[in-house]
Amino acid sequence: MLIRRPEQVEPQPMTMPGAMGVAMRLMIGRTDGAPTFAMRLFEVAVNGHTPLHQHNYEHEVIVLEGEGLVTGGVGGHTIRPIKPGDVVYMPANEIHQFRNTGQQPLRFYCLIPTTFDCGKACQPTPGS
Amino acid sequence: MLIRRPEQVEPQPMTMPGAMGVAMRLMIGRTDGAPTFAMRLFEVAVNGHTPLHQHNYEHEVIVLEGEGLVTGGVGGHTIRPIKPGDVVYMPANEIHQFRNTGQQPLRFYCLIPTTFDCGKACQPTPGS
Repeated sequence: MLIRRPEQVEPQPMTMPGAMGVAMRLMIGRTDGAPTFAMRLFEVAVNGHTPLHQHNYEHEVIVLEGEGLVTGGVGGHTIRPIKPGDVVYMPANEIHQFRNTGQQPLRFYCLIPTTFDCGKACQPTPGS
Repeated sequence: MLIRRPEQVEPQPMTMPGAMGVAMRLMIGRTDGAPTFAMRLFEVAVNGHTPLHQHNYEHEVIVLEGEGLVTGGVGGHTIRPIKPGDVVYMPANEIHQFRNTGQQPLRFYCLIPTTFDCGKACQPTPGS
């Protein structure tokens, strides 16, 4: 088994177009041997946001700290507040975005199928 | 999208042999349409524990509250403390157990491949 803490993982700035003030820590992923899904910890700075985008895989999110708005829905027309303790299921193909509207960093775990933990569709790991 | 809070989900006692004082909330699962992995929130009472067992799929865990010991390893011989903020990757086939050794409930998220979110190998959802 592997036990890891966020402070042991270097945050990577999210460079995807449309992202602002977002850093990601890959807590569990393909390089750890995880075969099915990957766990990433996001921190969105005050006034920051993830890109407004869509893709053909789902997100499962756990909000830890801060407050914000999440956009979702097939057309991206649904906007709802999020706060610590909330869990968000974002199905594949919904247009979505996470925005920090509070006065402190917005921190949340976001899990995705392992195939996509490099930020795009990756080639399967040999043997997986 | 779906936004849900733990208090909106009825906890289910874990009745698996070897479990003591464990309740589970299925936060996101097959019935929500999640195709790949399921999110469960566990609460282990003081002196309680999950079963010492093994299976052919992995766990990814986020510790929220409390303190405890986690057993892992191929032979189940590795025992390490866990505390809030820790992330645990338990590969398939390791003998594992989570024990509450603190003075308050031990709460953690545990995610698994969706196929197993009913507590055993389920039949695939039609269309998934």
